[in-house]
Amino acid sequence: MSTEQPKDKIWTAALIVIGDEILSGRTQDKNIAQIASWLNVQGIRLSEVRVVADKMDAIAEAVNILRSRNDYLFTTGGIGPTHDDITVDAIAAALEIDVVIHPTARAILEKYYTDKGGINEGRLRMARAPDGAELIENRKSGAPGIKLGNIFIMAGVPQITAGMLDALTGTLEGGAPLLSSTLGAWAPESEIADILRQSEKANENCQIGSYPFFREGKVGGNFVVRSTDAGALAICTADLRKGLEAAGYEVTDGGI
Amino acid sequence: MSTEQPKDKIWTAALIVIGDEILSGRTQDKNIAQIASWLNVQGIRLSEVRVVADKMDAIAEAVNILRSRNDYLFTTGGIGPTHDDITVDAIAAALEIDVVIHPTARAILEKYYTDKGGINEGRLRMARAPDGAELIENRKSGAPGIKLGNIFIMAGVPQITAGMLDALTGTLEGGAPLLSSTLGAWAPESEIADILRQSEKANENCQIGSYPFFREGKVGGNFVVRSTDAGALAICTADLRKGLEAAGYEVTDGGI
Repeated sequence: MSTEQPKDKIWTAALIVIGDEILSGRTQDKNIAQIASWLNVQGIRLSEVRVVADKMDAIAEAVNILRSRNDYLFTTGGIGPTHDDITVDAIAAALEIDVVIHPTARAILEKYYTDKGGINEGRLRMARAPDGAELIENRKSGAPGIKLGNIFIMAGVPQITAGMLDALTGTLEGGAPLLSSTLGAWAPESEIADILRQSEKANENCQIGSYPFFREGKVGGNFVVRSTDAGALAICTADLRKGLEAAGYEVTDGGI
Repeated sequence: MSTEQPKDKIWTAALIVIGDEILSGRTQDKNIAQIASWLNVQGIRLSEVRVVADKMDAIAEAVNILRSRNDYLFTTGGIGPTHDDITVDAIAAALEIDVVIHPTARAILEKYYTDKGGINEGRLRMARAPDGAELIENRKSGAPGIKLGNIFIMAGVPQITAGMLDALTGTLEGGAPLLSSTLGAWAPESEIADILRQSEKANENCQIGSYPFFREGKVGGNFVVRSTDAGALAICTADLRKGLEAAGYEVTDGGI
């Protein structure tokens, strides 16, 4: 990439999940976790997510604020062939850009549907893109994703999204990946809160997250240390382990 | 409730999911779908969701905008005993209210921890609440949720959230529940897009959502008709079924 960036710049992305099916509770979202995990590997941090309805103004509002305050903006959902698929129109409207038929997308769809009944009006909708957009390869089915500036417009079906992420792997500039290590213990969070707080305070470049659970009738927790510095991560993890063991808990590497 | 509301008012709620563990991809959120489904039964529509980090300003920004443009605001996460649990402080700061130890919450926690090692500093954190707040019963463990005006501050662990929702059932004013019916067919979305569009257009008080899937090596879809009017819902569903059957598809009630 051409622009010089400070070495320790934290690259951020936001995600907009578009779809009434998520807001109605009908569909359990899987794209937040999938995209978050993928971004971590690219050295990009997912900073915020919004789930919005299939409504032009709701999508446009989220697009304009999130694209301007993050390095990247991803959207999932609403790029299929049906009447409720309005993501392309909403993003084009938000950016005041015309929607055109993308010639390469059209060619891809014509080829994909050759032995599936050919192109039709619904299918051609999936070749529509904001003017000047590039395509994101769809390795699972026909219709491609769309890249417009720092906006990545992806499918809603998680398997198709996965294929698009795969196609984008290694193409986005990022920083040092966020590293993490996990310790687990059958410890009630409320008994070891002080140990967590002290370990985090003593290790400046690390954050510690506490994730309690109930299993087998017992309370326990996984404690995740995160840092972009491998050395600092190791020291903080060792420090936390020592604290938990001193309090009488057996500690499991990698979590329980 | 005392305030007169128009009969056809659509009651809306927003949800803020608070937690680095969701944004890092470590934890798969389950509260969005759970709360969305529960709200439907209360006659309240989930209009928007935001996932934000464990950061004071990120939480406060989301709280202030969402509480003002929705009838209700729910939050999940960040009310435990550890240092990264800052939801109460962030919401109090957003509303410019002091944080106090809620005497009833303290009494609940003291009782809950009597035979579990007693109260300590971490556990007492869970009795903190914005001044003037009420409590939401926790039917699964000790620490209660918090109600402050139209804001409902809930746990992040889905089983505990479920118990709090259970305690709130029937206590929130809502409108007519959003009804839905689902038809399924092994139809590629791109072949029946026109049928969906026409059915929706012909049935004014209904929305039709199209949810494609890949299974058993074949493409299919579930088509969900939604309306607050049971009669309109039945007519639209019958209309859609007729359209799909006329196009040669076998239609499955309730979806595939």
